[in-house]
Amino acid sequence: MNSHTKRTDRIGIMIKMLTDNPCKMLSLSSFSDLFSVAKSSVSEDIVHIKSLFKEYNIGDIDTVVGAGGGVRFIPSGNKAADKSFLDSLCVELSKESRLMTGGFLYYSDLLFMPDVAKRLGYMLAGNFMSRQPDAVLTMETMGIPIALMTAQALGCPLVTARKQPKLTEGPIITISYTSESGKKLESMSIVKHSIKKGQKVVIIDDFMRSGGTIKGMLRLLEEMEAVHTGTGVLISSAVPERKVITDYVSLLTLDGVDEQTKKIHIRTTE
Amino acid sequence: MNSHTKRTDRIGIMIKMLTDNPCKMLSLSSFSDLFSVAKSSVSEDIVHIKSLFKEYNIGDIDTVVGAGGGVRFIPSGNKAADKSFLDSLCVELSKESRLMTGGFLYYSDLLFMPDVAKRLGYMLAGNFMSRQPDAVLTMETMGIPIALMTAQALGCPLVTARKQPKLTEGPIITISYTSESGKKLESMSIVKHSIKKGQKVVIIDDFMRSGGTIKGMLRLLEEMEAVHTGTGVLISSAVPERKVITDYVSLLTLDGVDEQTKKIHIRTTE
Repeated sequence: MNSHTKRTDRIGIMIKMLTDNPCKMLSLSSFSDLFSVAKSSVSEDIVHIKSLFKEYNIGDIDTVVGAGGGVRFIPSGNKAADKSFLDSLCVELSKESRLMTGGFLYYSDLLFMPDVAKRLGYMLAGNFMSRQPDAVLTMETMGIPIALMTAQALGCPLVTARKQPKLTEGPIITISYTSESGKKLESMSIVKHSIKKGQKVVIIDDFMRSGGTIKGMLRLLEEMEAVHTGTGVLISSAVPERKVITDYVSLLTLDGVDEQTKKIHIRTTE
Repeated sequence: MNSHTKRTDRIGIMIKMLTDNPCKMLSLSSFSDLFSVAKSSVSEDIVHIKSLFKEYNIGDIDTVVGAGGGVRFIPSGNKAADKSFLDSLCVELSKESRLMTGGFLYYSDLLFMPDVAKRLGYMLAGNFMSRQPDAVLTMETMGIPIALMTAQALGCPLVTARKQPKLTEGPIITISYTSESGKKLESMSIVKHSIKKGQKVVIIDDFMRSGGTIKGMLRLLEEMEAVHTGTGVLISSAVPERKVITDYVSLLTLDGVDEQTKKIHIRTTE
């Protein structure tokens, strides 16, 4: 139908397709078919896109040769831009109106803004990209937006543990765990066949105080004989200093709140 | 620092920035500054991107002139490709292994695949794009992934109603509603200040049988004096034919399941 597609157009469309599908392998022949050009032209375009993405700090293009090979987009942040985004988030999170009765910080409105969730999810994903996880695990409800975006960046599915087991999804596994406050025994459930034995799983959550919830998810992974390959949280609380888990990435640290002066102390994690 | 950026590179980067931020207005001067070129060059690039997006059924570029003006990307699906995606989803959803005890259909694994959620959310969003909603409302937990992606396509935040009120987020509004089975009285809660009086809100959910849950969300919107501007669900059940709401969009229709033969009858909604 079409004659061959011009270089500018090929590069534009390829950028759209690659960045729409992070970590997904797209074959060179799918592009050469789409544009009615030789594979060698597509290869040259890819080299150009790679250098363009480097210049604009957008991410990397990974090329895999041979059968089943192709190209894929590996998103990567711009450290300076990420830091300044997190700093502005801290300013927003420090607003007096966000301090709720009991010293709780209100932030779910931000988590449910798709562009904020995407940015944070992609930042967390950056830490686990090289481990090529098979799934991301989170706990309902607040963790879902960033965990979904983390899974998007990693090109894998999200699995959600629930507080109340849902009985309409087949067999479930339920474990008990100590709540974040350390004072209550709670339970969490997961659909048994949602994660397979031996799969590599990254745990993502929005907030960590003592690490009890994360520890619960680790126990779920044990039960499923899955392999834990990393943990990332948006906010970790500076207190208690000693968490029940030790190895994790956190983007922000909540040093504390003062209910009297209504001051919220939150900062980018060093 | 840089000399002016070449046309191919400008177009590639602009496509990335525009499609990363659906429905968000980006100023022409931000592009001309970034690329060190005249605004007129940027305008010509935009015209080219617009025709390219039309050719590849990617969506539209909307140009707004004057102060506060700029360009924005309006995603739009390719009807034929969307239909074939939904058809393949129906094939997957008809698998015997998805039929659970009690005649329930297991599909949350698909909802939590980021690329599936994105595709479905963008399809739903297409129906409400012209209404320029201020927020998307859903009910936890299963509706969140597609609703988040709908909100992303519409360039607005997602607000999530909860089964159990969370008491750490400030004042909440709770209403009671009749469950989907019509047999139970349930309650749902929302943070009072999450939607403002007069805001236009689209309701998104994953599944609708009688419409009870949607009706509950409509009641929440009434309480908040918000304006309901559309409802979209992924799957609506053919039975009962008479729902408690009448005006909605559904992508798939579940005609029924046969627990004896293990047949699941699901199809793209006409």
